Amino acid sequence: MDPCDRGTAYGDGVFRTLLVRDGRLVCWERHYRKLLSDCQAISVACPSRDTLEAELAWASEDSRRGAAKIIVTRGPGSRGYAPPANPKPSRLVSVGPLPSFPQDNYTEGVCVHRCRMTLGFQPRLAGIKHLNRLENVLARSEWSSPNFAEGLLLDAEDHVVEGVASNLFVVREGKLHTPDLSRCGISGVTRERVIDRLLEEGVPLRVAAISWAELVTSEEVVLVNSLIGAWQVRKLESHTWVRGRWASRIRSWLDESEV
Amino acid sequence: MDPCDRGTAYGDGVFRTLLVRDGRLVCWERHYRKLLSDCQAISVACPSRDTLEAELAWASEDSRRGAAKIIVTRGPGSRGYAPPANPKPSRLVSVGPLPSFPQDNYTEGVCVHRCRMTLGFQPRLAGIKHLNRLENVLARSEWSSPNFAEGLLLDAEDHVVEGVASNLFVVREGKLHTPDLSRCGISGVTRERVIDRLLEEGVPLRVAAISWAELVTSEEVVLVNSLIGAWQVRKLESHTWVRGRWASRIRSWLDESEV
Repeated sequence: MDPCDRGTAYGDGVFRTLLVRDGRLVCWERHYRKLLSDCQAISVACPSRDTLEAELAWASEDSRRGAAKIIVTRGPGSRGYAPPANPKPSRLVSVGPLPSFPQDNYTEGVCVHRCRMTLGFQPRLAGIKHLNRLENVLARSEWSSPNFAEGLLLDAEDHVVEGVASNLFVVREGKLHTPDLSRCGISGVTRERVIDRLLEEGVPLRVAAISWAELVTSEEVVLVNSLIGAWQVRKLESHTWVRGRWASRIRSWLDESEV
Repeated sequence: MDPCDRGTAYGDGVFRTLLVRDGRLVCWERHYRKLLSDCQAISVACPSRDTLEAELAWASEDSRRGAAKIIVTRGPGSRGYAPPANPKPSRLVSVGPLPSFPQDNYTEGVCVHRCRMTLGFQPRLAGIKHLNRLENVLARSEWSSPNFAEGLLLDAEDHVVEGVASNLFVVREGKLHTPDLSRCGISGVTRERVIDRLLEEGVPLRVAAISWAELVTSEEVVLVNSLIGAWQVRKLESHTWVRGRWASRIRSWLDESEV
């Protein structure tokens, strides 16, 4: 850790988590676009695609299957919040083993913890996968039982926003909804992929605030991210869901290859 | 930078900035107590006082005057937000030169920028000097002119909260006020020192929300932190203040030695 790097000092940077499958980065183009857009959102110069591709190729050389991570920070700085006059962004590229998720998560669905930690509203940073993630860290520390596969985060007004490390789709009266992320939450690449595919398929989707009451009376809740793919929520507090059709449909879309 | 350190990955830690004066750490006891309390607030084990004292002494060996910094993070972790089962907190101790503030800041007061960036409400993290500081970073990037000595941060409801790197005291109708920091902002050690001294002196202080309208119609606004001491605000947008008596009084208190 470099104490002068603004990533360490202030969480002044962004990151990406990608799936490596069959030795290839899944949805690399999309991930790069999102990294670029997140960097721009906080005015950090994004490393070139070529540079990152070369480093990812090197880091994932021996991995047929794994979790790649890219961190980009504003780089070294002197004391104080003022950005350096000539920033030299830092990048960290690594590939680690993929967590082994229980097969039941895919076939039976998952049990989810309702987090007491709630997300604060910060429209200026909402959607960005930046390095200020104490809310997620504290939310994730609320449970240690492996019975819970994920935690559900609400905002200060009792809207459901996302999982601690995933995005959310909700089926109500046969229609798909996903929480609006303009005030808090991270807009993930897998959420984008699902939204794009729904549009392609002509399936209506409503992006809006979803209350707790609406969530627990829904027909199906699906969690998505790059590493897990899609899991249906089976149980959340005293609420249970029977198997729906969307989790497996979304999963099959995600399993199809995409550049 | 260690990509596996949770300080880098998530801003999962806290920090302190201390003044080194005459080769001594000013208010070390207070800073250590606050570091301990901030660590506890996010469940990170705080390094012992002895360890930090030894490292600070080593780092400040050649400094009669400087700015010391302590960063404590949850330490290395594996992929994902879940805290490590047996965390080994990391610490970074450094001492750098003290910025040279213009003498006018003390004699004439300072001109302050009103930040467009507003602070989000997150009561769970409010007051803590944690490493998730993108709000401050983006606020500080709003100006580069040396004419502005500091930026003023408001919350989403138009209350004044703090300076980008300082706390605030406001005099209205002869009475002292300081913003309540239970929903956002950092509660600094210098703010605490001033509050304690006001209590000792029997000076009434109101800790409450302060609106923009209340601020700009106040008789005096004073910014405080460990490095600057106390500066009176002379100008903020079209509002100006004549010299008051509190900035110099607070400054003289802060200049008195304290363990």
